[in-house]
This record gives sequence, structure tokens and C-alpha cells, in this order.
Amino acid sequence: MRSPPPPPHHSPRNGDATPPHHYHHHRHYQSTVSVQKLRRFNWLILVLRLAAFCFALASSIFSATNSRGPSSPHWYDFEALRYVFAANAMVALYSLFETGASVWEILKNATLFPETFQLWFDFSHDQVFAYILMSAESAGTALARTLKGSETCAASSAFCIQSDIAIALGFAGFLFLAFSSLLSGFRVVCFLVSGSRFPN
Amino acid sequence: MRSPPPPPHHSPRNGDATPPHHYHHHRHYQSTVSVQKLRRFNWLILVLRLAAFCFALASSIFSATNSRGPSSPHWYDFEALRYVFAANAMVALYSLFETGASVWEILKNATLFPETFQLWFDFSHDQVFAYILMSAESAGTALARTLKGSETCAASSAFCIQSDIAIALGFAGFLFLAFSSLLSGFRVVCFLVSGSRFPN
Repeated sequence: MRSPPPPPHHSPRNGDATPPHHYHHHRHYQSTVSVQKLRRFNWLILVLRLAAFCFALASSIFSATNSRGPSSPHWYDFEALRYVFAANAMVALYSLFETGASVWEILKNATLFPETFQLWFDFSHDQVFAYILMSAESAGTALARTLKGSETCAASSAFCIQSDIAIALGFAGFLFLAFSSLLSGFRVVCFLVSGSRFPN
Repeated sequence: MRSPPPPPHHSPRNGDATPPHHYHHHRHYQSTVSVQKLRRFNWLILVLRLAAFCFALASSIFSATNSRGPSSPHWYDFEALRYVFAANAMVALYSLFETGASVWEILKNATLFPETFQLWFDFSHDQVFAYILMSAESAGTALARTLKGSETCAASSAFCIQSDIAIALGFAGFLFLAFSSLLSGFRVVCFLVSGSRFPN
């Protein structure tokens, strides 16, 4: 019969002994605060990415299913609705990728790509996609408001309502993307100025 | 007999002796480079502000004069064109103010308002106005493309062409505004991280 393994060591490691160097202790404390802040920052980015992904995905699904048989108008016939779908689908894919990169960063404490590349990649894509998404939703809104007065909405009000929902979801996705673009911009400049992607 | 005066000392001053404080000399050199960089940075911002002002002003003038007598369509009847005019007029006023603030900064070497307020004011307004301008131009484009197929453009093609020009000018203004928003974002983060609006 095999003996059971020894019980794991349950006493807390903190406070076992007084730290030998007060200065060292202080520095360690500071760096713990900074690590905590960095972790909170990374979690905030992850939440924003995830929210942007959800809203953009929902918006593109609402856009792409906006058709009710051959007698009803089809979303594909309207340029602005195609633009809304394309922009939201792109942002959904991008946000999915960035969510993965963010999870990687939280788990491994390092960026997925080399740091400089990752920071510039995130920031430039955030900027461009935020402007594209804003542009698409605005174009969609302009079309939707034009359609409101036309016979298209009178004949099939469900089509117009679904377009409105898709556009509104896209605007919500834009808000999260714009906010993550602020954070990734902060990381880039922080890296340029202080050599680290988060201030110490 | 008097001896001739000693010949003037022609040897170059550099190399007479080693400079007493090499460190001081080096720091002075660095700060000169940094002042030059700061000046170039400020001039770049001024040029961008001025360009954004010119394009936004031109776009709002083109928008607001887009009417050819009572028989022709009037820009004010189209929601999206009102939006284009309003956004460009706002951006023109804002850019004029920022051009003034930029000239003040170059002349006085200090920001117009207290530094923290000025940096955040610039950055937040740049961001918001850039998104608004992008939104307005996209909505205008969507309307212009819808009008292309309608009888409005067939009856008065000059109206549609002038709308297109106004929208194109607005997009150019957007590019300059978006670029200055990057620079003012850089200044804000630099100030947050290093305590100065420009890295030393």
C-alpha cells in the first residue's frame, strides 16, 4: 500500500519573515502597485474589446439577415447597408483577434507580437476602424432617414426597423472601439516616451 | 626699444582647454535639440490647424451657397447637407481658435490657457470634432449617392456637383483634423507620463 503524499504547505508565505531591506521592500511595494494597475488596465482593454466584438457581431448579423422573402426589400440592394455590414463584420473579426491578443497578454504578461509592432498595430487599426465604423453608421443613418419618407418603409416597416437596430448596435460598438483606441494610443505614447507600455 | 606686442591669439577657442563641465555642456546641447524639436512640432500643429480651417471654411461656404433660385433644390431641405454645413462651420470656428492658440504658443512659448486644461481641451475637442466631421461627410456622401439616381440631380446637376465638392473639401479637412488629434493626443500622454508636453 502506498503512503499518501505529504500535505501541501498551508501557512501563508506573506509575513513569514521581516523583509531584509526596507528600500527593497518599498520598491517591491511600488512595483506591486504598478503591476496591479497594469493588470486592471489590461482587463479594461479586454472588456472593451469583448464589448466591441459583441456589438459589431450583433450588428453584422442584424444587417445580413435583413430580408423577408423576394417581395420585401433586400439589404444588399442598398449601398449604405452593405457598407454597414462590411464595416461591422471587419470590426467584429478584428475585435475577436484583439480579444485573443488581450487574453494572451493577461496570461503570459507579454504581448502576442513583438511589443513595438503590437502597440503600433493595435493603435493604428483601432483608429482606422473607429473612423470607418463611424462613417458606416452615419452613412447608414442617412440612408435610413431618407428611406423613412419613401414607400420602402411604408411597404415593409420591419425592414426599416431592423436596419435601425443594426445601425444602433454598430454605434454602440463604435463607442467601445473608440475608447479602446484611446487606451491603445496611451500605450503607444507611453512606450515612446518612457520605454514601457505602462508608466511605472 | 619696446618689443612688439604679442601677436593676437588666433588659435581656435575650442580645444584651448577641456571644458570645465563636460556634463553641463552635454545637457545644454541636448536642451537646444529639444527646443528645436518642440518648435518644429508647434509649427507642424499650426500648419495642420490652418489647413483644417481652410478646408472646413471652404466646405461650409460651398454647402451654404448651394442653391440656384427658387426653382432649384435648396441645400437646407436636405438633412444630411445641413449636417455637413453645421459640422464644417463648427470645425472652421474651432480650427480658427486653435490656430490662434497655436500662434500664441509659438510666440510666447507658453500655452494660452493653463497647460493641463489646454492639452485636454485640444485633445478632447480634436477627437470629438474629427468623429463628427467624419460622420457628417459620410452622411452627406450617402445622401449624395442616393440623390444621384433621383430626379433631383437630373433636373439640377450643378446642385449635386456642388454638394460633392463641399463633401470632398470636408473630407480633406477631416484628414488634417484627425492628424492634429494624433499630435494633441501625443502631447496629452507625454504630459501625463513625463510631466512635460514634449519629451526632453
